[in-house]
Amino acid sequence: LSRFGGGYGVGIVSLTAGFDLGGTKLLGVVADGAGTVVASARTPTGRTPDSVFSDLAGLLDTLTGTAGPVDAVGFGVAGLVDRDGVVRRAPNLVGWDGLPARSRLEDLVGLPVVVDNDANVAAHAELRFGAARGCSDVVMVTLGTGIGGAVIAGGAVYRGAQGLAAEFGHITVDVEGAQCACGAFGHWEAIASGSALGRLGRQWAARGEAPAVVARAGGDPEAVTGVHVGDAAQAGEPDAVAILDVFAGAVAVGLGGLVDALDPEVIVIGGGLAELGDVLVGPVTQALDTYVVGAQSRPLPPVVVAVLGERAGAIGAASVAAEMPALRGPAPSGRA
Amino acid sequence: LSRFGGGYGVGIVSLTAGFDLGGTKLLGVVADGAGTVVASARTPTGRTPDSVFSDLAGLLDTLTGTAGPVDAVGFGVAGLVDRDGVVRRAPNLVGWDGLPARSRLEDLVGLPVVVDNDANVAAHAELRFGAARGCSDVVMVTLGTGIGGAVIAGGAVYRGAQGLAAEFGHITVDVEGAQCACGAFGHWEAIASGSALGRLGRQWAARGEAPAVVARAGGDPEAVTGVHVGDAAQAGEPDAVAILDVFAGAVAVGLGGLVDALDPEVIVIGGGLAELGDVLVGPVTQALDTYVVGAQSRPLPPVVVAVLGERAGAIGAASVAAEMPALRGPAPSGRA
Repeated sequence: LSRFGGGYGVGIVSLTAGFDLGGTKLLGVVADGAGTVVASARTPTGRTPDSVFSDLAGLLDTLTGTAGPVDAVGFGVAGLVDRDGVVRRAPNLVGWDGLPARSRLEDLVGLPVVVDNDANVAAHAELRFGAARGCSDVVMVTLGTGIGGAVIAGGAVYRGAQGLAAEFGHITVDVEGAQCACGAFGHWEAIASGSALGRLGRQWAARGEAPAVVARAGGDPEAVTGVHVGDAAQAGEPDAVAILDVFAGAVAVGLGGLVDALDPEVIVIGGGLAELGDVLVGPVTQALDTYVVGAQSRPLPPVVVAVLGERAGAIGAASVAAEMPALRGPAPSGRA
Repeated sequence: LSRFGGGYGVGIVSLTAGFDLGGTKLLGVVADGAGTVVASARTPTGRTPDSVFSDLAGLLDTLTGTAGPVDAVGFGVAGLVDRDGVVRRAPNLVGWDGLPARSRLEDLVGLPVVVDNDANVAAHAELRFGAARGCSDVVMVTLGTGIGGAVIAGGAVYRGAQGLAAEFGHITVDVEGAQCACGAFGHWEAIASGSALGRLGRQWAARGEAPAVVARAGGDPEAVTGVHVGDAAQAGEPDAVAILDVFAGAVAVGLGGLVDALDPEVIVIGGGLAELGDVLVGPVTQALDTYVVGAQSRPLPPVVVAVLGERAGAIGAASVAAEMPALRGPAPSGRA
């Protein structure tokens, strides 16, 4: 019997591990087929791929020590990941461009491994267990330091020809607009990410129009971040609410284009800004109809926040691993 | 036996009719399962839905008189068409908003009918018989008076939750940019459609920078259209080539965003501007890498022109009709 042989997947409660690698931390879980987290652990992001792999192996030991053995490992990485599990480009990670992450990990852990973009695995978790459960066509957008996202089409994560789809942050929405972290101009991420919210807050602060926000930044207008604006808006401070209203328009510009292109049944907002909840979703929903063609003659998709929080990526990596073809067992007779 | 019963579809050479309704003409074909056109006919677009339906019935009589009986009818309409075959919004057609086109047509012709957006059916034709044959993930963009398009995902036309996907023309690419025909500002269509090419040509002409183009417009700078610019560019006139170079950048802005979002294996350009061929495709291809994130570290999808020409919509309407579930016969035993 090969290790991929009978016994896996069909009718047996099995566990998989999922890891989510971001710019600041590596988060791991062991989860069952219902998305229930049996064990979880985390460590700061190592400075080289070697140290990350070593950390991951250590976390996997710890996790399986608690939860028992796993059948497979999923790995979500903040970057462009192709269909072969090669990291093409990871702007927030050093040394990962071009790295064949899947084959490296399979050698390391001796288990089947699937590697995907962090937003894709988070979307898979929301699709199976969260805000998009039961949906067929979904746009998920993660608003954090940058903007990531995922497309769900026909009930499955849509990856594109090379596995590089859903790089929503770098869609041009303002062709002569602000410079993006990637160097280009006018990208959605440059006006609608958490970083952009902080920049907007500092602009208002510099003009003396954001007193409550500046107070939260220790009185220094230049120290204002998106978190200060968000906290103040949640507390109902009028200056912050007004900033968030402008920001919501910038979010809606990009979402509107995605609705024009993809006509989703729901838009799921994840990432750090999702924690703002209705304070963000309310004005975004209001602004959306300005940016969707024919908004008068069609229902617009609801905008909802992701529900699985910061572990969505790791849970989704585990659920993607659980669904990899190698674990599905032999094909039923008559269709082999 | 119901008229949908056994005998259809499986192993029998059957014919279907397809109609494509645009702002100026109604074009009909009868085609076989290989996309071969057995008969075709056309008439100018009637001024009311009633006159269009009456024209369509007349064309269908003519076509089937030549080609023999058909099993079903497909109908592509220039507008937003939902999954029930209701035309939600058709800005270039009078009286069609809200019209239940499928049920009206089924009553009229006594055959199964499928109704879809004109760009979706044209994309289906290119997928089955044309430039996208054998592809899985494709973006098709029709550049004409406006901009339409279609998404092919996993080898099928992706329609979205309500059937309203791929309204690419109204994606915001320049948030404070030119006004679109729809009234909103900064839409892709406002800078990259055939109408926009004409406007760009008139701007250059007014500045005295497009002598060869103006000559083609009878010497009147205000009479310049996109066709004059395109013809002059195909003739190699430097002023027109320079205009087309700028215009290609505007086309690439929107295409780049679609590549970021959808990572297609090929981009198919249809519509009137597709007739420009390499004169347009060359500079668009060159400009594309400016607007795709990570273009340095990934192959970009080739940009190709549609091959089925002005009959693509009607051929695709016929092929969509041929594939409608009602014509596929009973489910094979064991899977019913």
